[in-house]
Amino acid sequence: MLRVSATGNGCRLTVEMHRDDLTPLFYPGSLALIGASSDDSKFGGRFLRSLLQFGFRGRLHIVNPRESEILGMKTYPSILDVPDQIDLVGITVPAPAVPQVLEQCLAKGVKGVELISSGFAEAGTEEGRRLQDQVKAIAGRGLRVIGPNCFGIYCPASTLTIMPGGDFPRESGPVGFTSQSGVFLRRFPKRGAGLGIRFSKAIGYGNGVDLNEADFYEYLADDPETRIIASYMEGAQDARRFFQALKRATPVKPVVIWKGGLTQSGARAAASHTGSLAGEEAIWEAVFRQTGATRTASFEEMMDAVLAFVHLAPRCGRRVAVVGGGGGTSVGAADACERAGLKTPFLAPSLQERLVRALPPVGTSVANPIDVGTVFPEYRHLEAALEVTAEDPNVDTIIVDALSTYISINGDETPDMLELPVRFKKTADKAIAMVLPVEATGTKAVELEARRRRAVSYYHTAGIPVFLTLERAVAAVAKVAAYREWLAAR
Amino acid sequence: MLRVSATGNGCRLTVEMHRDDLTPLFYPGSLALIGASSDDSKFGGRFLRSLLQFGFRGRLHIVNPRESEILGMKTYPSILDVPDQIDLVGITVPAPAVPQVLEQCLAKGVKGVELISSGFAEAGTEEGRRLQDQVKAIAGRGLRVIGPNCFGIYCPASTLTIMPGGDFPRESGPVGFTSQSGVFLRRFPKRGAGLGIRFSKAIGYGNGVDLNEADFYEYLADDPETRIIASYMEGAQDARRFFQALKRATPVKPVVIWKGGLTQSGARAAASHTGSLAGEEAIWEAVFRQTGATRTASFEEMMDAVLAFVHLAPRCGRRVAVVGGGGGTSVGAADACERAGLKTPFLAPSLQERLVRALPPVGTSVANPIDVGTVFPEYRHLEAALEVTAEDPNVDTIIVDALSTYISINGDETPDMLELPVRFKKTADKAIAMVLPVEATGTKAVELEARRRRAVSYYHTAGIPVFLTLERAVAAVAKVAAYREWLAAR
Repeated sequence: MLRVSATGNGCRLTVEMHRDDLTPLFYPGSLALIGASSDDSKFGGRFLRSLLQFGFRGRLHIVNPRESEILGMKTYPSILDVPDQIDLVGITVPAPAVPQVLEQCLAKGVKGVELISSGFAEAGTEEGRRLQDQVKAIAGRGLRVIGPNCFGIYCPASTLTIMPGGDFPRESGPVGFTSQSGVFLRRFPKRGAGLGIRFSKAIGYGNGVDLNEADFYEYLADDPETRIIASYMEGAQDARRFFQALKRATPVKPVVIWKGGLTQSGARAAASHTGSLAGEEAIWEAVFRQTGATRTASFEEMMDAVLAFVHLAPRCGRRVAVVGGGGGTSVGAADACERAGLKTPFLAPSLQERLVRALPPVGTSVANPIDVGTVFPEYRHLEAALEVTAEDPNVDTIIVDALSTYISINGDETPDMLELPVRFKKTADKAIAMVLPVEATGTKAVELEARRRRAVSYYHTAGIPVFLTLERAVAAVAKVAAYREWLAAR
Repeated sequence: MLRVSATGNGCRLTVEMHRDDLTPLFYPGSLALIGASSDDSKFGGRFLRSLLQFGFRGRLHIVNPRESEILGMKTYPSILDVPDQIDLVGITVPAPAVPQVLEQCLAKGVKGVELISSGFAEAGTEEGRRLQDQVKAIAGRGLRVIGPNCFGIYCPASTLTIMPGGDFPRESGPVGFTSQSGVFLRRFPKRGAGLGIRFSKAIGYGNGVDLNEADFYEYLADDPETRIIASYMEGAQDARRFFQALKRATPVKPVVIWKGGLTQSGARAAASHTGSLAGEEAIWEAVFRQTGATRTASFEEMMDAVLAFVHLAPRCGRRVAVVGGGGGTSVGAADACERAGLKTPFLAPSLQERLVRALPPVGTSVANPIDVGTVFPEYRHLEAALEVTAEDPNVDTIIVDALSTYISINGDETPDMLELPVRFKKTADKAIAMVLPVEATGTKAVELEARRRRAVSYYHTAGIPVFLTLERAVAAVAKVAAYREWLAAR
């Protein structure tokens, strides 16, 4: 599609993104790494090792004019010397050498470039800005560029990881993640690994001089492999296109955005990180309100929201029943729900009566939050609590809160107890989430942590999201509920 | 000291608490457990095992009219049959049996009772309220009662743990904790174990019919073993005394309060948990403002604040320098600081210039937050960043943020790197905190988690608090800074 855009020099024609344009960047048949190195302390060395470790299945070529062989692989002086068609190029050479290398890529007819190198507009120097303008101009002549000043691309389905570190999950999943920060680009797949969060694609684009969040949103909104879009962003490179792309995406799938640089200090830091104009809080407030995108303000909040969208979306709502084992945790849970804009309605009187008969007479509570009396409840007591909440038509979402049974559980000994929430997840018409905090923090308690993680993994495989605290769980539930309400009100 | 207090029946004389009155409850020479059991599923069984496991050094007697021997120990039919003077009694018998047992304790001349049993006012029944009134009346005749409806007392210095579970830290520490919730009473020492948080005393008092937070505050404010007071509370049993005790305590030591039940739903839950009137948010807002007590709204927030007070108090202030390894983390840190009411001032120009010369030219930032370019920095780069921030007179607090080096560190291989923040903590006139997130969450990554925990333990031993996220670190730093400002402005 042709599109007219205004530049400082008047009007020019640019080609608007199509899904087909980006596909070779995620599924390259051939990949070249320019600036590859045997030195693991350099990005060119770390990215190469990552690709080898992750086991890139396509044709991999490496370019370095000062070497003839790296890690046993033939090394070409320039991309023009590579005797192959190249779909995607990763570039780690120093900024001043980048324009010439990009010209060669253009001449070679490569389809896309991941420009990892730093030292452009974010450096705040005249030379940096000049180099960035050169990159932009070359890209405008027909080369799609991601970056500069970024890591990278991660697409497990195509065994692609242009990122430092090759130990990312190899399974694909429903999350498409775009990030202006390389640290968060790496952190999310790593941190998500144990939480069952898997990615269709993750893309770092740093300064975003050519391809930016608008392009990626357009692509991911149509991408059948992506069910949830998540973003860390500092500034929209093209505010109008970003807004349109976001508005088009949110009715189709949830878009979770962590917008960095909304404070004055943060905006200052963003300018020196990606050269972004971070924009004002009031404007972004309106963007979130008008598009139905989900707003988050920290890495953990973004991750929790994505985890909730992965598992809870079909039935999640604001009317929450909390099932826990203690009066204090019930009070804390009720406070946290109300502060997050959730409701903890009294259970129906007839259901409360049933629960009174089923639970021990002392030290329990049946209204909601439901207190089964201890963090090590008997099977029949927890079963009764879940049965009753599952039947109440005024409850959308059930949260099983911090029962120590589930933290220290040994699956072999207590399969029924372990399976109980999964049974209700299968039969009840409710969204179900769990809270399994790290209870034992000592250096000698890692075996207990290993058990907790096995339980977490078990529940994520069964489609039940597990959060570290009740407060984090309800914040995430509230976001899914708000998105579903927004969808319903459209 | 004699004090006149009004009751429904007019005036009566009561004895106001002295330090001496509570000391036997924390340091009992002799202890009796009434309701002791060999059945580990009953509280009377679990508390007995805890005492034995923790190794109570005093004289321990057990009472149960239906047994003559439990776990090889002679068992007395009633407290009156025990041939010993008794300082402290723990009671787990059912509520209807409690008044008679308390009468026997009074007759025996015991100094204090930890009344664990539930089924009193919190049950919401006429009988429960009547039983609670009876307990109150008996206590008024000269028996100090903690409870009912609670666990327990934990005082490592006297090897006392009237709590379920005997695996609490055996070392004492500076934190005096009072809790109306048994779950949180157990959770804090357990969770604090790996964070280097140690306790002078922890006291659960549930419904608080006789001794309550006001008594404990009076005691802990004078207690030389307690440097920080922390509380989970639902309602002040005697609002005026509570306010006076709090006002007296805060100028002497920080008081960190998690007030549960401030929302409508939370207040409703508190009424059925401890029978407390939880009070209104506006009133509590004023209490915090007027007393300088530190307000928190969740378990984690309370724990983080206590951790910060343990280590940061002497120099902590709002002017923060963040040293991290990434542009995105710098933006997130600046946002988080500003949202928490902290400042991230530009470093002095001469110091920035020094840092420009010391750090790599590309991908770093020297203004503040300081970005050393990577989460695996070279020693000399991190050293330069700490040196420069340590010299800036406009910085009070340095936060070393999420450097993966410190998360995956092996102490044997990299002792210098490990020791670097400790060196600056010794020499610099700054408060220093670290953020070490759980980066690897998978079931197979527990060895990495073990390493992280060893690093956390190392820093806590060295007096540097470690937080799980930057957001939690700055929230805690802001609380310590606010308390110090309040102290200075008095």
